[in-house]
Amino acid sequence: MKKAIYPGSFDPITKGHLDIIRRGSKSFDKVIVAVLINSEKQGLFSIEERVSLIRKATFGIDNVEIISFEGLLVDYMEKNHISIILKGLRNSKDFEYELQMANVNKILGNEIETIFMISNPENSYISSSMVKEVCKLGGNISGLVPSEVESIIKKKIMG
Amino acid sequence: MKKAIYPGSFDPITKGHLDIIRRGSKSFDKVIVAVLINSEKQGLFSIEERVSLIRKATFGIDNVEIISFEGLLVDYMEKNHISIILKGLRNSKDFEYELQMANVNKILGNEIETIFMISNPENSYISSSMVKEVCKLGGNISGLVPSEVESIIKKKIMG
Amino acid sequence: MKKAIYPGSFDPITKGHLDIIRRGSKSFDKVIVAVLINSEKQGLFSIEERVSLIRKATFGIDNVEIISFEGLLVDYMEKNHISIILKGLRNSKDFEYELQMANVNKILGNEIETIFMISNPENSYISSSMVKEVCKLGGNISGLVPSEVESIIKKKIMG
Amino acid sequence: MKKAIYPGSFDPITKGHLDIIRRGSKSFDKVIVAVLINSEKQGLFSIEERVSLIRKATFGIDNVEIISFEGLLVDYMEKNHISIILKGLRNSKDFEYELQMANVNKILGNEIETIFMISNPENSYISSSMVKEVCKLGGNISGLVPSEVESIIKKKIMG
Amino acid sequence: MKKAIYPGSFDPITKGHLDIIRRGSKSFDKVIVAVLINSEKQGLFSIEERVSLIRKATFGIDNVEIISFEGLLVDYMEKNHISIILKGLRNSKDFEYELQMANVNKILGNEIETIFMISNPENSYISSSMVKEVCKLGGNISGLVPSEVESIIKKKIMG
Amino acid sequence: MKKAIYPGSFDPITKGHLDIIRRGSKSFDKVIVAVLINSEKQGLFSIEERVSLIRKATFGIDNVEIISFEGLLVDYMEKNHISIILKGLRNSKDFEYELQMANVNKILGNEIETIFMISNPENSYISSSMVKEVCKLGGNISGLVPSEVESIIKKKIMG
Repeated sequence: MKKAIYPGSFDPITKGHLDIIRRGSKSFDKVIVAVLINSEKQGLFSIEERVSLIRKATFGIDNVEIISFEGLLVDYMEKNHISIILKGLRNSKDFEYELQMANVNKILGNEIETIFMISNPENSYISSSMVKEVCKLGGNISGLVPSEVESIIKKKIMG
Repeated sequence: MKKAIYPGSFDPITKGHLDIIRRGSKSFDKVIVAVLINSEKQGLFSIEERVSLIRKATFGIDNVEIISFEGLLVDYMEKNHISIILKGLRNSKDFEYELQMANVNKILGNEIETIFMISNPENSYISSSMVKEVCKLGGNISGLVPSEVESIIKKKIMG
Repeated sequence: MKKAIYPGSFDPITKGHLDIIRRGSKSFDKVIVAVLINSEKQGLFSIEERVSLIRKATFGIDNVEIISFEGLLVDYMEKNHISIILKGLRNSKDFEYELQMANVNKILGNEIETIFMISNPENSYISSSMVKEVCKLGGNISGLVPSEVESIIKKKIMG
Repeated sequence: MKKAIYPGSFDPITKGHLDIIRRGSKSFDKVIVAVLINSEKQGLFSIEERVSLIRKATFGIDNVEIISFEGLLVDYMEKNHISIILKGLRNSKDFEYELQMANVNKILGNEIETIFMISNPENSYISSSMVKEVCKLGGNISGLVPSEVESIIKKKIMG
Repeated sequence: MKKAIYPGSFDPITKGHLDIIRRGSKSFDKVIVAVLINSEKQGLFSIEERVSLIRKATFGIDNVEIISFEGLLVDYMEKNHISIILKGLRNSKDFEYELQMANVNKILGNEIETIFMISNPENSYISSSMVKEVCKLGGNISGLVPSEVESIIKKKIMG
Repeated sequence: MKKAIYPGSFDPITKGHLDIIRRGSKSFDKVIVAVLINSEKQGLFSIEERVSLIRKATFGIDNVEIISFEGLLVDYMEKNHISIILKGLRNSKDFEYELQMANVNKILGNEIETIFMISNPENSYISSSMVKEVCKLGGNISGLVPSEVESIIKKKIMG
């Protein structure tokens, strides 16, 4: 069985993330969405809130599992016998960064493979930080986040 | 079973191609290497020679199949029930081109997904046309093509 | 009155071209679509056919004019008292090329200004050559060209 | 009348900014230079100082207006019946960022259009933060900022 | 003594080429301008004309030598005990290409080093093919080619 | 005698840095590795530790000198009669940044030339910050830093 792990901060999940999860769930037997716990960088949403939002947004996709992890991704993967990382690519800035990360992960974990899907054009400009920025300034974020979690995200950001 | 098709001209196969095939064969249940027959653009190697070189170079990788096809890739894929295209990315020029192709293929075939692997750094500058250019000028192509087919490629190019 | 000229080969017009013309017609008082006559490079559609396709596709947009020209764009512009070139940008490859062209045109015509609009994401991968390639291979080009001219384009390409 | 808004931090105005304002004032009937008030990020120059520097630097260009705004740019634009954003592009890093912003602004404000001018080559490497860095280290900033405001900027930065 | 070779087609030499030669002659003890003889691609100027134009344009720079060569650059370099290639970089498209070439040359000639200088902004958009294109269409090429050879280039191109 | 200065933070030195120093020492008569003292940004390693690590890593390369400096690089260069800056380029993001810096340095110091070497592919994804990140998370950094200083770097980072 081919399992792929999809790591990220997901602070919060966007429509772009959901699209990659959905497409990944068709190309792999299982997709594990992995929320990175970064003790040095406090996000807006707590880890529990992020996991809960992803769960709501991916409701109905059977082969998706949501976890959170701390430390080196490759360590988590080795302990859990996962060898494929799934990432989305939005633009060539993403590409340059991911090129570096894919090579680092290959050095750190010998058998690790990173696999990329290119974002749909209509999601190519969406990021979590942009969602927070737009929402805080009073802009409309429908079209940027999964509809299932839009109201929760709005409430949290706008207080 | 997750099958991926790896399309290209392979005129001739390089070390970079072989690396993607090998890595793809670990991430998917089957990799179908597909040599594109382009009636308008005559290559240096005939289609039969290209298929034969790939066969020799991939000898020992069990879940690889080599085919040739004419026409639209997505048509071949639909007829053969394949939904995943596998491509290698060497640099951001590749990325810009593949971004376009992935979107085109998604328009042409609704259920088509393109999946990318980033080339190993040591293969990131290798291309078939560069192999032909270097060899023609008398340069050494070991390190650029699979060792199993180096002598055949040399012989063909240098005559 | 601020007039902008939108030059290109338009062999044939795509949905991406039409979008730029439409948006340009809102930002400028007049948009002059200018089909470049290139005596060295025969296109698939004749100059007359290209102009006719653009006319059909832009029907109903009042402040659009369609012309064809030969020679240096800046010469045409100076003769006709136009100082603004309008161009679309799809990706960073386009950007690098247009950066060069904008500087050349500024050298050639002192008072020339080039103004850019970024393609809508859903048009960012469309080009005339891609339309011809896809259509020739039997793919579906609706979604790639203006609906008003789709059947004419298909008939011409497929014969 | 076609009005364009040119938003930014302008902390402080550079020769690159002035060039875009000047060129914009020729392509549009009016250019509104809009200094963004960012309550979370204190700049070196106060909003009043920035506006004053822009006023001095643009003295003599009749169709320029200078304002400051807080919150979402598109909200300001809608309230003031402006539909065109003017931006400068220096390099492909700028382009990737602006591609994202243009799409966001289009989502936020339906009728918003972003229009780009490419920086003159001699200004392509100038930024406000670079001006501050160079000046603080004792370097010469003439050639980087408008001559009309060079001494004021120097005095502020060097104390 | 540190010698650097500056290879290219120089069909014809541009102001951008001359700038790199001049700057190279200050950083290295000797700069060898090397015109590539490409038997498969006929240029506009003959090899003799190109060499002659470079000679005229570089008149007065003492440590410059002009040669022409056929075949693999690294072979020429090894025969003549040169280990440094000098190249100009105009933009990131150039960079991607040169990244590939530098790696190829390192494979072909073990001790070969490629060294890059970034074009002056005012030359960043100039290329030989652009010079020919502009001149053929009747545009003004002063500012694009060295003044010493402008009239010769014009005469050749315009006939 | 042609001297080149190789400036950076070196916090700490990586295998990529060492490769550029080594290659630079072959192309220039002398390479001065210059550690930038940044009073505003405290690094992980002290300036003395960074210099010491570079000294250990470059042991045996005769024409290398290691210094530290504060303030504007071009000022240091003018005082010490150095006119060439040596920099490594890893990818096109580096290129865009260095393009800007090279132009700034040319403005600041009239006779300053910046010369670039492209990183070996196997070093193209290595940076000091990545080394620190990986090490802190318990990853293996051999292959990322010079072997001579690996244990010292590990000890410092892991405590």
